[in-house]
Amino acid sequence: MDRITVEMVKMLLERNRIAGEINRVKISIRKDVKDQSREDQLQDLVLETGKKYDMEHTGDAARRGGEEEEEDWSDSAKTASRLLNFLLKESLHTQFSHKGPTHLSVFQKAMEMERDGADIIHMEVGEPDLMPPESVRDALSGSYDAGHVRYGSPRGMPELLEALAAHSTRAFGRGWGGGGTGGGGAASDCIKFTPDNVIVTPGGRFAVFAAMSTLLAPGDEVIVTRPAWPAYKDCVIHIGAKLRAINTTLEKSWIPSVSDVTDAINQNTRMIILNYPNNPTGAVLPPDVMDGIMEAAARCGAYVLGDEIYASYTRKPWRSVASYRYDKSIAVQSFSKSHAMTGLRIGYAVSSKRIIDRIASLAALCLTSVSAPIQYAALHALRSDSDGETASRNASLMSERLDVLAGHAKGMGLEFAAPGGGMYLFARVPQDGADLTDAMLREHNVALAPGSGFGPYRDFIRISVASEPAGRLADGMNRLKNMLCAGNAS
Amino acid sequence: MDRITVEMVKMLLERNRIAGEINRVKISIRKDVKDQSREDQLQDLVLETGKKYDMEHTGDAARRGGEEEEEDWSDSAKTASRLLNFLLKESLHTQFSHKGPTHLSVFQKAMEMERDGADIIHMEVGEPDLMPPESVRDALSGSYDAGHVRYGSPRGMPELLEALAAHSTRAFGRGWGGGGTGGGGAASDCIKFTPDNVIVTPGGRFAVFAAMSTLLAPGDEVIVTRPAWPAYKDCVIHIGAKLRAINTTLEKSWIPSVSDVTDAINQNTRMIILNYPNNPTGAVLPPDVMDGIMEAAARCGAYVLGDEIYASYTRKPWRSVASYRYDKSIAVQSFSKSHAMTGLRIGYAVSSKRIIDRIASLAALCLTSVSAPIQYAALHALRSDSDGETASRNASLMSERLDVLAGHAKGMGLEFAAPGGGMYLFARVPQDGADLTDAMLREHNVALAPGSGFGPYRDFIRISVASEPAGRLADGMNRLKNMLCAGNAS
Repeated sequence: MDRITVEMVKMLLERNRIAGEINRVKISIRKDVKDQSREDQLQDLVLETGKKYDMEHTGDAARRGGEEEEEDWSDSAKTASRLLNFLLKESLHTQFSHKGPTHLSVFQKAMEMERDGADIIHMEVGEPDLMPPESVRDALSGSYDAGHVRYGSPRGMPELLEALAAHSTRAFGRGWGGGGTGGGGAASDCIKFTPDNVIVTPGGRFAVFAAMSTLLAPGDEVIVTRPAWPAYKDCVIHIGAKLRAINTTLEKSWIPSVSDVTDAINQNTRMIILNYPNNPTGAVLPPDVMDGIMEAAARCGAYVLGDEIYASYTRKPWRSVASYRYDKSIAVQSFSKSHAMTGLRIGYAVSSKRIIDRIASLAALCLTSVSAPIQYAALHALRSDSDGETASRNASLMSERLDVLAGHAKGMGLEFAAPGGGMYLFARVPQDGADLTDAMLREHNVALAPGSGFGPYRDFIRISVASEPAGRLADGMNRLKNMLCAGNAS
Repeated sequence: MDRITVEMVKMLLERNRIAGEINRVKISIRKDVKDQSREDQLQDLVLETGKKYDMEHTGDAARRGGEEEEEDWSDSAKTASRLLNFLLKESLHTQFSHKGPTHLSVFQKAMEMERDGADIIHMEVGEPDLMPPESVRDALSGSYDAGHVRYGSPRGMPELLEALAAHSTRAFGRGWGGGGTGGGGAASDCIKFTPDNVIVTPGGRFAVFAAMSTLLAPGDEVIVTRPAWPAYKDCVIHIGAKLRAINTTLEKSWIPSVSDVTDAINQNTRMIILNYPNNPTGAVLPPDVMDGIMEAAARCGAYVLGDEIYASYTRKPWRSVASYRYDKSIAVQSFSKSHAMTGLRIGYAVSSKRIIDRIASLAALCLTSVSAPIQYAALHALRSDSDGETASRNASLMSERLDVLAGHAKGMGLEFAAPGGGMYLFARVPQDGADLTDAMLREHNVALAPGSGFGPYRDFIRISVASEPAGRLADGMNRLKNMLCAGNAS
């Protein structure tokens, strides 16, 4: 035992020394230090080594192949792959992730300019300019006297869990066809969620973080379709997992094909993230693609994390990952967009009891429980909106604004795919998106998000309709038009 | 490169196979699978191997010895130690942590009994039975109309950060001598904190979690004095770091010696956690011990995480880790105990800007920001209590209750050290603490926390004064007395 350990230490140090030499050479010839195809090649090699080892020592490499998740951990190929991940991390001492501008950095700069007196048109962030429902005000006022000032369960207040389970059954339990009209949405198909299937979180973001942190181990791979909200990648890096991106294109209306996904799946695939309606493109997956991806996930036993916080802003048939009777799906929902409650920080996840239990154990470790007055406010927001009127009024408003925006964008000759939901337009621009958004903010007081914040989309920008009324959006688009015309003329 | 990688994979699999054999033998002879002294021995071996490698290849092992933290990462000895940690984890596939009853499991059971109609005397949890100040009610009521419903900075609302910086300067910036009387607490010694030194968190717990998660890497060691709040260990496990416990004793009034700490420090020590006033013992570190530990930490460059959420409940001279001009100290504070605001979930950390920046990056990833109405409520709690009257009234009440409790415990012949602060008594009992607390709850409707939840203290229980008035505490103690008398008689 000691001998093997010492030998491994020596090899690791030798490996790091060689990697250091290679990195220095790469940097000197301005080559990227990280080389995905080389890493993939090494991964194939170690997987092969692991499989061979199993054949020689146990003769059951075939039998163990990816049936039941829990058993898989003992699989030598996976062990080998975890070691490779460790080695790759050790050999990349320096931080190479170049951080360019994102919608958040633009937002921060815009706020600075506002403090200096500028009037900024905010088309960079996804924060509705609406107020939460009045019931939220009343609930916050009443929470103290109602005694909502004590620790609670890490899962959430029982009444709120009940209400969310009922709401989720109505809103996310159905297959294609939505609210009962047409499609496969017969009542018998509808999944009925119980409070055991729900956990309340301080925002949808914490649900994403907690699901990824508890379900993924270092070396696991996560498939994400891009363009994508940057937080997925940040979480993957935090965990030490590995992102496998599928870069969708405007030409295909930002819709991945089922084979894009199946091609990206390998032995280490542990999770597929589906963010539809998509941020930033507004794309909604068509039924055949959605069904196909869910089937592919089930075949390889991968978790499906549905970040569905734009679910109430859908303009096309849409289906929640929670509606597939698949116990490894996790639907993340939030009050932020549907009820304009961003700053209150409250969301929830809907999944199988087993997964909710795991998320709850991390929530207990990080938070004890979610703020009691805020849970009480969410409960009242939900109760006062039992017919979904608030959510659908907000959705109609955003939809109208999207139409206004799309009209302007079309008039200017910008290329984009008509959004099927959400509150953004992701449009190709005739110059570098980061330069453009920087100039628009500095010279024209219009804040826009550069496409490069969402993946390799330098010639795109994201335009948000969340925070400004139609008139100011039109104003912002006119300023953009002038800028682009001037740019083309020069 | 490929050859080394493949060789390492083979060695890892071989190592795991051997470890599996050894574990099976150990289990069959009912021996603990985890063997700390064996692990320590292996660690010495790999550190030695790493150092030798440096000598042979770079000749600068001596020069690199633990000067500046950032440089240290390239130290071969540390690399070797990280590999060992990875190997140890890989060789222990199964979960061996036996989970016995804790204060939380007792609390949950007590709540179940209450739902069935039982009247439980709660002496198991640290949740004050007081209401938050009235200003919190008013702030919650006014937060909606004041517009506190929007995303904010991950660090916290600027006004709250200002107020907390000023409060921290007053309450935690001074050396020995406290509020200006005697000691080394001259005004010139006082540290002045700015908003850059503060981050608002959803409870002190998140500050502990975030500080540990961002400052520690797998393989790093964390020194914790026990008995200890179980969350530290849970965080250590979550991170993949290693806990090095110092088991303090009743005989020494739960005070570790400076040499206990220096003996526990080694090349991998990355953090020392100081939770004083201590949960569960109420111990407060005497000046020479506190100063000595801080010096030892500075010598080895370890972070010092001061979990100081009981700071306002101090009955002895006490000093915050934040008051030592040491840029690797982090003081965690909370409104939960001082202002009875447990369920609102709000706390904060005070540290150097560099550390606050790192905690903020994780907070941004997990949370975006802390709930705006709750931050507004905390701001008002702080402003309305600028003279510290609420906090000190709550502290006096808890102190009186502690005296009542101590009187009863003494009368019953229980052994304990008079608490220097906090809201607990940690007393030796003449039988297994877990059995006793279980029987007390089931048979006498008194909820108490077993000592084993805080470390290897099976013959202890923690008695909390937080949640019940003096009369009911006395009632609970009388029932305990009867139980113990009956137990001794049988």
